[in-house]
Amino acid sequence: MISISPTTRVRRSPYFDATVAAGVTSMMTYNRMLMPSGYGDPEAEYRRLTTGVSMWDVACERQIQLRGRDARHLAQILATRDVSKCVDGQGRYVALCNHRGVIINDPVLMKIDDDCYWLSIADSDVGLWASAVAAERGLAVEISEPDVSPLAVQGPKAEDVVASLLGDWVRGLRYFGFADADLQGVPLKVARSGWSKQGGFELYLLDGTRGVELWNLVAEAGAPWDIGPGCPNLSERIENGLLSWGGDTDADTNPYEVRLGRFVDLDVPDDVIGITALRRIAAHGPTRHQLGIVIDGDEPRPAHARWYTVRRGGEPVGHMTNGTWSYKLQRNIGFGLLSVACSVGDRIHIDMDDARTAGIVTDIPFERN
Amino acid sequence: MISISPTTRVRRSPYFDATVAAGVTSMMTYNRMLMPSGYGDPEAEYRRLTTGVSMWDVACERQIQLRGRDARHLAQILATRDVSKCVDGQGRYVALCNHRGVIINDPVLMKIDDDCYWLSIADSDVGLWASAVAAERGLAVEISEPDVSPLAVQGPKAEDVVASLLGDWVRGLRYFGFADADLQGVPLKVARSGWSKQGGFELYLLDGTRGVELWNLVAEAGAPWDIGPGCPNLSERIENGLLSWGGDTDADTNPYEVRLGRFVDLDVPDDVIGITALRRIAAHGPTRHQLGIVIDGDEPRPAHARWYTVRRGGEPVGHMTNGTWSYKLQRNIGFGLLSVACSVGDRIHIDMDDARTAGIVTDIPFERN
Repeated sequence: MISISPTTRVRRSPYFDATVAAGVTSMMTYNRMLMPSGYGDPEAEYRRLTTGVSMWDVACERQIQLRGRDARHLAQILATRDVSKCVDGQGRYVALCNHRGVIINDPVLMKIDDDCYWLSIADSDVGLWASAVAAERGLAVEISEPDVSPLAVQGPKAEDVVASLLGDWVRGLRYFGFADADLQGVPLKVARSGWSKQGGFELYLLDGTRGVELWNLVAEAGAPWDIGPGCPNLSERIENGLLSWGGDTDADTNPYEVRLGRFVDLDVPDDVIGITALRRIAAHGPTRHQLGIVIDGDEPRPAHARWYTVRRGGEPVGHMTNGTWSYKLQRNIGFGLLSVACSVGDRIHIDMDDARTAGIVTDIPFERN
Repeated sequence: MISISPTTRVRRSPYFDATVAAGVTSMMTYNRMLMPSGYGDPEAEYRRLTTGVSMWDVACERQIQLRGRDARHLAQILATRDVSKCVDGQGRYVALCNHRGVIINDPVLMKIDDDCYWLSIADSDVGLWASAVAAERGLAVEISEPDVSPLAVQGPKAEDVVASLLGDWVRGLRYFGFADADLQGVPLKVARSGWSKQGGFELYLLDGTRGVELWNLVAEAGAPWDIGPGCPNLSERIENGLLSWGGDTDADTNPYEVRLGRFVDLDVPDDVIGITALRRIAAHGPTRHQLGIVIDGDEPRPAHARWYTVRRGGEPVGHMTNGTWSYKLQRNIGFGLLSVACSVGDRIHIDMDDARTAGIVTDIPFERN
């Protein structure tokens, strides 16, 4: 076992001590912050998420704040989706692209008010990107990373837990809707959000000195529902088709390749970064597409540490970008980023580290077959 | 002990399997790649580096390639140092700054030829930054991350090892000088470089499929000099005043605060990013400066996982950004990023996780006292 070593280059989350107390056994980094990745019993964590309620330290989901007269303009320049329809207190999932139309992050864009937007980011340095663009275009906007640290409460019982903490009004929040809240003096924004398809909320802690306090309040309130610690869950997210930017995408991936085309608005203004390239890609169609892969056999295989080459009739046709044991399907499943020549039902082979395995191309999300 | 978990979001180095075989016990991430951070015996690793020769997997020191007609122009726009004096086969240490004069990375800029430069980067996404700037300014330059993975050979005996591998000509390389080489068919660039003050080389592997082969060739050639595995060494680098971008810098640090002012050329063209801000800072002087800190007492303390507040006369005067046990000084030493009101000889206190410790402000590099 390889341990993770302390360094000031990678930040600890405000919940770090609480996750250690809760028995965290593995971590990874995300946005140069430590993120718990396991508590020692993957199946129990999966069951808790899919049938009960789970709490996750996802402080590494950093917020990049755009504030100033040109905040909205910058948000639109960065996002390939029409942001003019954003309203205060409502988030939208957007694909940020570079000038070639390649996805550089897939955040939730949250409109705080007319002069302030947050990008709730995946694992790449959107602050650096936004700073470069804003300064090069001479926009009146200040870019910062505010003291905001999300704690996710996910699962079918999450709403009951968060309602018991903050009141029944949270039940009225729309998906990606958010509002200010105060939990025994701990300042929060509460959002109906989270990186699972089990439903739930993210509590955006607004004071990094109070992480353990918030963690303990949630753990206590959730006790009647048997809440327990967890983290973004590989099985659950692959079963349900959630994309991992940087895990399922590479340096050439555009939105149309990974099922995000419906979040691109081609009629946004021409100054939106990447939109010209995306119009061209949309007109001609992408060369790859993301499909499911189900591996033959029912022996659980380890999670991927790299992409594997996928072959059809012996010829390389793309990659299997992630794979995991599905508790729901009782099969090893994963995502393929495959040539558009491949389609559902194709028989394939995958060059894994230890073996060449056989499988079949499927739709996403996966269906029990 | 918290273990590191596999994910396709964080790459493994081409040397990964070799480092596991060599007994790596801890890792961290750097540029979204795993980097070994220990082999289980810190003092032995320090002694090997400072008295013998050590080999390090630093593939995570990624190269950002600027190629095209405007490559040199872009290199100059990004670097706050005059790059017109760069010659083929010679690197220069440069501070990249944002438009406010804040350091966003401190790479070695390597001139490959007139139309091609590499930035050998620290832990931030220079590719994203450079892509934004190049596209916004309409420059004819292609930005990529080539398949290049440095393996460092460091220590007083490193030159003998690398000469035995590649020939005595390597002894003639200047500091940051580099040249192409071929090691039994393994394509390399060899540079006199590395993140220690013990002397040595970096072998830039140009084919990521041959990492274990290169590792083993170096291990075998170094056996007569008792080469062994290591990694960037916290004690050695702090003793000798080497800066860790992101570890010793924050979101507001400019070059003048961290002893990098001598690498800034204020007479570069006005289109260099950050130079206007840096001229202003240079004229008025920075508000913080980096000095050494020596803690009272001679019991080794653990490495930092975060910055600690430093107090003088009870008042906060800055932070201790990193600290470690110095085998040379037999003291706990570290870097302070302190108000310019602080100077060498000041008595201070440091608010550490577990205790308030006392210490003294010193020069960098540290002298045995």
